[in-house]
Amino acid sequence: MAHTAELIAVGTELLLGNIANTDAQMLSKELSALGINVFHHSVVGDNPQRLRAAVEVARTRSDLIITTGGLGPTCDDLTKNVLAECFGKKLVFNREAALRMEAYFKKLHPESGKMTENNYQQAYLPEGCVPFQNDWGTAPGCGFEVDGVRVIMLPGPPSECGPMFRERAVPYLQDWTDGVILSRSLRIFGMGESAVEDQLREHMNAMTNPTLAPYAKEGEVELRLTAKAPTQEEARALLTPAETALIRRFGELVYGVDIPSLEWACLTLLKEKGLTVSVAESCTGGLLSKRFTDLPGVSAVFKGGVVSYWSQVKHDILGVPNDLLFQYGAVSDPVARAMAEGVRTLAGSDLSLSITGVAGPDPDDRGNPVGLVYAAIAGQGETFVRVIHAAGPRERIRTVAASHALDLLRRRLMGLPMEIEKR
Amino acid sequence: MAHTAELIAVGTELLLGNIANTDAQMLSKELSALGINVFHHSVVGDNPQRLRAAVEVARTRSDLIITTGGLGPTCDDLTKNVLAECFGKKLVFNREAALRMEAYFKKLHPESGKMTENNYQQAYLPEGCVPFQNDWGTAPGCGFEVDGVRVIMLPGPPSECGPMFRERAVPYLQDWTDGVILSRSLRIFGMGESAVEDQLREHMNAMTNPTLAPYAKEGEVELRLTAKAPTQEEARALLTPAETALIRRFGELVYGVDIPSLEWACLTLLKEKGLTVSVAESCTGGLLSKRFTDLPGVSAVFKGGVVSYWSQVKHDILGVPNDLLFQYGAVSDPVARAMAEGVRTLAGSDLSLSITGVAGPDPDDRGNPVGLVYAAIAGQGETFVRVIHAAGPRERIRTVAASHALDLLRRRLMGLPMEIEKR
Repeated sequence: MAHTAELIAVGTELLLGNIANTDAQMLSKELSALGINVFHHSVVGDNPQRLRAAVEVARTRSDLIITTGGLGPTCDDLTKNVLAECFGKKLVFNREAALRMEAYFKKLHPESGKMTENNYQQAYLPEGCVPFQNDWGTAPGCGFEVDGVRVIMLPGPPSECGPMFRERAVPYLQDWTDGVILSRSLRIFGMGESAVEDQLREHMNAMTNPTLAPYAKEGEVELRLTAKAPTQEEARALLTPAETALIRRFGELVYGVDIPSLEWACLTLLKEKGLTVSVAESCTGGLLSKRFTDLPGVSAVFKGGVVSYWSQVKHDILGVPNDLLFQYGAVSDPVARAMAEGVRTLAGSDLSLSITGVAGPDPDDRGNPVGLVYAAIAGQGETFVRVIHAAGPRERIRTVAASHALDLLRRRLMGLPMEIEKR
Repeated sequence: MAHTAELIAVGTELLLGNIANTDAQMLSKELSALGINVFHHSVVGDNPQRLRAAVEVARTRSDLIITTGGLGPTCDDLTKNVLAECFGKKLVFNREAALRMEAYFKKLHPESGKMTENNYQQAYLPEGCVPFQNDWGTAPGCGFEVDGVRVIMLPGPPSECGPMFRERAVPYLQDWTDGVILSRSLRIFGMGESAVEDQLREHMNAMTNPTLAPYAKEGEVELRLTAKAPTQEEARALLTPAETALIRRFGELVYGVDIPSLEWACLTLLKEKGLTVSVAESCTGGLLSKRFTDLPGVSAVFKGGVVSYWSQVKHDILGVPNDLLFQYGAVSDPVARAMAEGVRTLAGSDLSLSITGVAGPDPDDRGNPVGLVYAAIAGQGETFVRVIHAAGPRERIRTVAASHALDLLRRRLMGLPMEIEKR
């Protein structure tokens, strides 16, 4: 039987517009993947009466109420107190939660002695609940059931809410997800969302199991296939042909299935081949290096790089000849080429990437337009330069530029054509 | 008299988690600036019954209901039909709206002839309403009042919702905006949220106008003061003494008021003093450079840097002596020092920052614990190294490490003590 969830976010900062309710977006995605319907989101401030009212309405129309926020000392554990009261539960001290908090606090402030008193409040949880220990922050969450309505409380910060839902709440909901839901996510780089959708439209509407949903990311598209079946095997049997068809349709634009990112694809390929990489960045200003080093274990293949924001640095550190900089300007094919080759020699890596371009908001001093970017790859073959015309705000242009550089690396490591073929 | 607004977003894509409800964030900001309280956000799908229910509740507790989305042909003008019905209004054809749509359509599709029939549906608006012509898309919005409750309907796409609110709805609300709300945000680095809480607890509860609310950011705390008064001047008069008191209390931990970030504070100081900076990063792997280059115009002061992820790169590019690397290891005070001094010489900058540490997930080969970080600053005085013990996941450790380096730069540029003083 299908369950209905309702999300209640608690936090005046949401009502003041200081932050967007991204927890609701994340939870909605996760819940629909579990086959649990979400018919309502609501947001209330740090206000007991209004939270109580929202909960009283929610329990009449949903059998799963998930709250986010209002757990920490900042708000005197508003959410916990109100929900315990609504569902007639006492708050009892949870020793393990207290110990976890102390440990987390010690790690955070090894010098300053003991945890402040107000933190211990957070260790009080509704009697008989399933505690969700917080390995990503201090405030623990929990789940409990009263009269067929399940309540789940999660912390507000997305960096705690997400992992706690996936690692604590999903297991708690296991018995609800009758049958299994399996998803596969195909990642596409090199084609716009609307172009992908155009190719899939009639297709998508026809598909019911598995369902097919595209999600646009900055310069990327994620295609999520979701199948529902009594068993894992049956769900897989539904997914595989659909996945194969999509891969046939989009070819080498699909850079991976169920992998987190382009940089992750590159890391895996570099490890397989035992090759190292270094980078030289101008307009991306460290973003490409950051994306590599976001990945634990990347030190096996990523040696480092140079952020040559100034032309002088391009010359002094990377050895880009001044006459190239003078004749063609910093944003040019020859300079991108020289940057890649320069950093490769400097770092002594098998491969190297470079990026130079105009991130904006203004054109460069030579009148190159915002969004014009050159990305180059050197090593394991001839140096290759790709010209990119990225659109959108500064941050998006930088992200797209870095993704193109990673796409060059992926293509070279896989022996694919370096240019993105129009489809 | 203070008014109370309630936001109702209509769109299944929100309940599926395809998009976040950023309209609600934008509108909440704008409304609080107008001195209109927002106590509830809610989201329903493209479903007449649930929308009607949400509206019926809203009209009992709010005197302004703002809907976003659910206009336009794709959803059969769901929102318009339901709200007209709820408030007992007929929909009547609005000729000007129709003409605007035709014009917009021609601009969009100069080749294809006339607008499709279903688009004309959108020109029907509740009788007696104030039409909000849409210069940013097709579907017009509108405002009307029934029994003291005002209703405003806005299109869902943020690129239409924002401008239509500011240019159409705000004038419509003119007679309501008695009084103003002013906020000031003090940014604190170097003290944990709960410690800040402890110092402010009794204080905060006592304060009503201005109110004081702390928000935790990664390794930072934002203190927001919000005052409500009949005029800008009176609001400012309420804010200033409270702001002064907080700055006295937290001293140099306050790195700015109403500024976006530590890096922004550093950029401003560097420009004022006409000084340049370069960076050498190990465990942050480009994050510090990225944070600098997130800021447009940073090229005036930020020359670039080196991401020396490998010890070999620390030696070959930054010139860190091998015996230091061998004797103390890459994660050590002497190496942080040598990295900062090395990159400063290499880039020829007035100042330089370096970061070396263990971001995790595992301790380094010398058994240094995850979260141990050394940050150094060179130039404009003796080279100084700060030892940091950061906690949490890899990404948080990297962010906190970069913030400490920025804090060193800010303190040196302001002539403050380099160590964070316990309070």
